[in-house]
Parts: sequence; C-alpha cells; structure tokens
Amino acid sequence: MRFHKTNLTVYTQGRGFYEITPEINTSIQNWGVVEGMTYLFIPHTSASLVINESYDATARCDLEAYLDHIAPEGESWYVHTLEGRDDSPAHLRTMLTATSLTIPVDAGRLSLGTWQGVYLAEHRRRAHRREILLRVLSVE
Amino acid sequence: MRFHKTNLTVYTQGRGFYEITPEINTSIQNWGVVEGMTYLFIPHTSASLVINESYDATARCDLEAYLDHIAPEGESWYVHTLEGRDDSPAHLRTMLTATSLTIPVDAGRLSLGTWQGVYLAEHRRRAHRREILLRVLSVE
Amino acid sequence: MRFHKTNLTVYTQGRGFYEITPEINTSIQNWGVVEGMTYLFIPHTSASLVINESYDATARCDLEAYLDHIAPEGESWYVHTLEGRDDSPAHLRTMLTATSLTIPVDAGRLSLGTWQGVYLAEHRRRAHRREILLRVLSVE
Repeated sequence: MRFHKTNLTVYTQGRGFYEITPEINTSIQNWGVVEGMTYLFIPHTSASLVINESYDATARCDLEAYLDHIAPEGESWYVHTLEGRDDSPAHLRTMLTATSLTIPVDAGRLSLGTWQGVYLAEHRRRAHRREILLRVLSVE
Repeated sequence: MRFHKTNLTVYTQGRGFYEITPEINTSIQNWGVVEGMTYLFIPHTSASLVINESYDATARCDLEAYLDHIAPEGESWYVHTLEGRDDSPAHLRTMLTATSLTIPVDAGRLSLGTWQGVYLAEHRRRAHRREILLRVLSVE
Repeated sequence: MRFHKTNLTVYTQGRGFYEITPEINTSIQNWGVVEGMTYLFIPHTSASLVINESYDATARCDLEAYLDHIAPEGESWYVHTLEGRDDSPAHLRTMLTATSLTIPVDAGRLSLGTWQGVYLAEHRRRAHRREILLRVLSVE
C-alpha cells in the first residue's frame, strides 16, 4: 500500500458551489493510483464539502437558496457578529454539511455516481483562498 | 493489510430508512476481517446514509417526519422542478445527511453502539434500486 | 503501515460542545505517528461530532442556539417521546451533524485549520458518559 498527498487550492468568488472533481481525478491519475480510498478534508470553518447533483445547475441553485433559508443572516439571537453578518451563518452551514469525505477509487478514478460531483461550498460573501487536503491510500 | 470491496444493492419502496447493518457484517465475516476500518459510500444524489437509533422504530418515524418539515416539497423558490416535486427536496436532504461514513471493525464486526443501526435513507417517493460501495481495510 | 486504536471518554454536563482536540493529539504523539489518517467514530445516537470554530466561544454559542431553533423540543408531531422531551430532538441533531470524521495527520499532529477544533456535541440535557473510538493509520 502507498499513501499520496497534496493540497488543492480553490479561489472562491463569494457564496456558491465550486466543483473540484476534475482536480481530484487528475491527482489520482498523476500518482498512477488504480484502486483505493480518497480522503478529503477542508481546514476551514466557513466553507465545507458537498457531494451533489452535477448535471443540472438548477439543482445547485436550490441547494444554495436552501442554505439561505435554513441559516439566514441577521437572526436576532446571533451573538457572534463581530466578524460580519455572514460569519455566524457560515459556521452553521459548515456544521450542517461535511468537513471530511471518503470516496472509493476504482479503475483509476473516483467511484462517483453518474450525477455526482464533489464541491467546495463557500459560505462567506467575499472572495477567499481555500485549501482542501487530498490524501489517497493506494491498495494495489 | 488487505483491502476488500463489494457493492450492496438495496431495493427501496419510497421514502424511509432501510437498515443495512446485517449485510455489512455478513461481508466482514465472509472476508474473515477481525480488525480495521469500514468505508461506506453511496453514489446517489437523492438517497443518503444515516446512522441512528435502531431499537425503537418511533425514533425513525420522527427522523422521517423531520426531513419533511425541514425540506418540504413545493417551496415557491424551488427552480429545479423538472424531475418531480420530490426531486429538489431529495437533494437537500442528501446534503444534510451523509454520503460517506467510516466505521471501525473490532472482533469481526462493526463497532456500533448498542442502539445504532446503519441505514440507507431513500428521499424519493418512488421505488429505486440503490447501490452502496462497501470497502474494508483489514489491518491484521 | 501501522494501525493504532484507543477510546476516548468524555463526561458531559448536559448540552454543549466539548473539545477533544488535545486528547487526540496526545494519543497521536504517544504512538509516535508522524503522518497518516485519523478516524473518529462516536457510538451514540444522541451525541455527535462537530469540527468548528475554536477561537471565539460566541461562535459555539450560536451553533448551540441554532440546534435549539432547528430541532426544538416539544413539536406536536413527535411520536418518540417515552425517553424524555429532549430525546427525539437529540436524534435529529445527531442526524444533521457527524457520526464519523476523517482527519489527516502531518508532522505528528492533526492537520486542522487555524481556527478549527474537534468537538463532541452532547444533545441530551443530563450528564452522560460518552465514548469516542479513535483509530489512526500511520503510513510511514
């Protein structure tokens, strides 16, 4: 077994879903991994990881709108407000989604479903430089 | 270390929680794994993975009812509506729950708590054939 | 590759977030692990795992208050009520957060972001003794 690692960098332009599936598959192919497990970890508290519908962009529109409905800005009971109106909602959205993911690798690529894509979900309004830790355990 | 893999198939009959704990333990026992890590991944965007109360079925009733309350059908702001009224809520519910899980194996079986069961959560109204990718890293 | 395992015990004093980052790093250091993957699994259905803001305590205040808003006690449609008013909400909160996490290890410690801490989230009102299964795959 071998263990590979790198970090992916994503420059976000405010709230939304940023696909990282191709970058992950490129790393897997560069390392020559055929079979194993992929680990993703995002070291941020106001951005997170989401696997969801990649084919129809309207599905992601609803996912984004939903996060606004379920964790809106400006709630009267927020006490963590010093870092901006969008900061506390960003932590809430991070808690509801994923900070780590594990995805099998088969035949030299992520074993995603037909409609699945892997996304970095940015929860702050402003542009940010985000990192994702990519680790792959190769089992052959 | 050895790596084992198979896919589990679950035929769902509409929304609800379908337990897969016995099938996972059967695979672990068939492979003769005593100690290691189990990885579950569901390659769907309208079904997900949930670990929760397995003893009292009323707990799962509340979990199901809750998903209806928190991500209902027919919201006026949904734009992803071409694939049915239940499709966008299914993606939302998938985002709030898990697409991947990692569970330790000890003494030849999943190290679940006394009251825990592993479930496939079906979020569409109609029956579906669902797959779950099961991978086990055996460390002895 | 080597595989290490232990269980962490946390005595909770009712609802809230209990940090476990130092205990995890101590185990990693005691085992002499430099690089690899950490796996956390919580074998409970009314407590869960959360990675979030560790610097400013007001952020965690909002996370706790949010769980009360999003999964309150006393909903008229709860049917799982025999184990107390706080039991069904505890299962809902567990479903929305994480039961398992995977975190890279680099340079002999968890590769968390600057502001991240790892927490056990207690969802019941009363004090509980909770376990967390800690597994580390060392790759050197």
